[in-house]
Amino acid sequence: MQKIKVGISHGDVNGIGYEVILKTFANEDMLQMCVPVIFSTPKVAAYYKKSIEGAPNFNVIDRPEKARENQLNIVDCFGDKEIKIEPGKPSEETGNAAFVSLQAAVEALKNQQVDVLVTAPINKHTIQRDDFKFPGHTEYIEKQAGEGNHSLMILMNDRIRVALVTTHVPVAQIAQKINKHLIEAKLKILNEALKMDLAIDNPRIAVLSLNPHCGDNGTIGNEEQEMIIPAIQESFKKGIRCFGPYAADGFFGSGNYAKFDAILAMYHDQGLTPFKAISMDDGVNYTAGLPVIRTSPAHGTAYDIAGHNQADESSFRQAIFSAIDIFRNRERYYEAYANPLTKQYYEKRDDSDKLKLDQVTEDDI
Amino acid sequence: MQKIKVGISHGDVNGIGYEVILKTFANEDMLQMCVPVIFSTPKVAAYYKKSIEGAPNFNVIDRPEKARENQLNIVDCFGDKEIKIEPGKPSEETGNAAFVSLQAAVEALKNQQVDVLVTAPINKHTIQRDDFKFPGHTEYIEKQAGEGNHSLMILMNDRIRVALVTTHVPVAQIAQKINKHLIEAKLKILNEALKMDLAIDNPRIAVLSLNPHCGDNGTIGNEEQEMIIPAIQESFKKGIRCFGPYAADGFFGSGNYAKFDAILAMYHDQGLTPFKAISMDDGVNYTAGLPVIRTSPAHGTAYDIAGHNQADESSFRQAIFSAIDIFRNRERYYEAYANPLTKQYYEKRDDSDKLKLDQVTEDDI
Repeated sequence: MQKIKVGISHGDVNGIGYEVILKTFANEDMLQMCVPVIFSTPKVAAYYKKSIEGAPNFNVIDRPEKARENQLNIVDCFGDKEIKIEPGKPSEETGNAAFVSLQAAVEALKNQQVDVLVTAPINKHTIQRDDFKFPGHTEYIEKQAGEGNHSLMILMNDRIRVALVTTHVPVAQIAQKINKHLIEAKLKILNEALKMDLAIDNPRIAVLSLNPHCGDNGTIGNEEQEMIIPAIQESFKKGIRCFGPYAADGFFGSGNYAKFDAILAMYHDQGLTPFKAISMDDGVNYTAGLPVIRTSPAHGTAYDIAGHNQADESSFRQAIFSAIDIFRNRERYYEAYANPLTKQYYEKRDDSDKLKLDQVTEDDI
Repeated sequence: MQKIKVGISHGDVNGIGYEVILKTFANEDMLQMCVPVIFSTPKVAAYYKKSIEGAPNFNVIDRPEKARENQLNIVDCFGDKEIKIEPGKPSEETGNAAFVSLQAAVEALKNQQVDVLVTAPINKHTIQRDDFKFPGHTEYIEKQAGEGNHSLMILMNDRIRVALVTTHVPVAQIAQKINKHLIEAKLKILNEALKMDLAIDNPRIAVLSLNPHCGDNGTIGNEEQEMIIPAIQESFKKGIRCFGPYAADGFFGSGNYAKFDAILAMYHDQGLTPFKAISMDDGVNYTAGLPVIRTSPAHGTAYDIAGHNQADESSFRQAIFSAIDIFRNRERYYEAYANPLTKQYYEKRDDSDKLKLDQVTEDDI
């Protein structure tokens, strides 16, 4: 089994990104497990290496194909260009550097020069520029490497998985962005990701309501009646085992979340706040639904502790493990389902799919 | 010290309300601690009494003034009228009965025939009628007994207190309901409630952002810049120790909430979902800011377990404890601050409040 090449973008180098990258690979076992390829510059890496005990030496290369096993490879994307590092400070310079790294990493991912991508946190404000007008990684990667597929943001750990119908959207716009079609689309992606990428057979999905108390039968909003319930029913008919809608506060308060393989929340804070409240720092962000595989730690740049050697690398390490797992699961899934037999039975609930034994389909030839 | 009279509305009698009331008072110590006065009918009480071990007998009265110590008093608000009980089923009949009980209880509270009010959960849909067009208890009580004051919903337990700027509002309307003035008003009520009702000196308050990631400097909404930050600054100048805004997910994920006496969330699910995720069933809902004192358990009607004798009464019992504590704290606060001296010093940061020793104010006479 060939080692998986893990592309890594360095994020905002004034944040804790490099610290968690180097702490992760200070553990030799990690280099046994995959071939890391950081899209960055050895100068910044060297700056942070000083303070991380056991951080490995770098193999500086000019193209990802040259990455070597058992090395911490750095594809130099900056050449002689200096980046001024001031841990804890947002700056235009590191915002630009975050973009250059991400762009190179995504390009390599698209061209299969790396197998998966793990992104260190960016500052979503300073990275903005003419060729990056996105609210976050997720949207950029969907555009660049999605091949027209829509992505789904999933935050997960061993116990809970929360997916979001809307992601980095102002609260003022959440309700107008949500509709039946979008919820169905997200349910479909989530269901497929659970089966294909996370190897869960017949996943059970809980859907949260948009409004407090599920809208209390229309007293507090009617999106539940008009969009969410119809979307659940429609998706259920199509074979997705989805249930709800559940009011978010009661759902998490009662511990009901433990009975589902995943939870579809309507918006960012509704899903991620209880997830993080329960999980603390332990969580991985996974961009599902795309032909490429990308994960990231659940935390941000954490400027308040940047440069103080206080960052916990476990979420970043977990992001690497998850990316590798997803890559392997997908391989197995494609293999297992590569040559299916033509359906030889009736679907009980689906009249449209009639068995036609008297016909020969192209697949049979 | 006279025992405090605790008015209790029976809520939706097809829910778990009566079960948690009777389980609470099945413990004799509770009758030592206060004089409970349920606004209800002995028929419904008798129906539920059958299945609750140790539930006390009732003292049926026609007016709250007749309540006796060491008894579970029921003010009969229904006379001969029968209420059909079907545990677990929403019905118009029990919706009406919930209103009749609440109306009588609030009336008694206004007239100081009871000292505090603890409300059992209603069905916010079936209770609606011409004289109850409110999204919940909080808004009804504010209107009926608020004397023009604005209320603030606080969910609390021993470790966390979460207050809400907006309560039972559809997500589509949250952003338009929020403004600088409202946030300042809620901060003022919260600060006063913490000092006066919960006996916390110099409380520290955390304010959450409206948008994900605090709006990322305007990339995801600008209510933070335009309303929330100015409201925090203005309130801080006025002596309220408030901080933020904090992005909700990171705030609860990092455990930062433990460093504050209270948290002001912008909307229902943002505050209550992490609260309940952390606290499970342990929590009390307190309506602050009003001349009257009202608490309730944090749970709803819980139709799914109604009539099965599975409900946990601890939140209801805690609601009674909290109401009693708040009543006593207010008494002490009023006593302590009843006759303040005129200020005899300069405020360091406030030039407007000059000491005028050469003048005699009315207070001095």
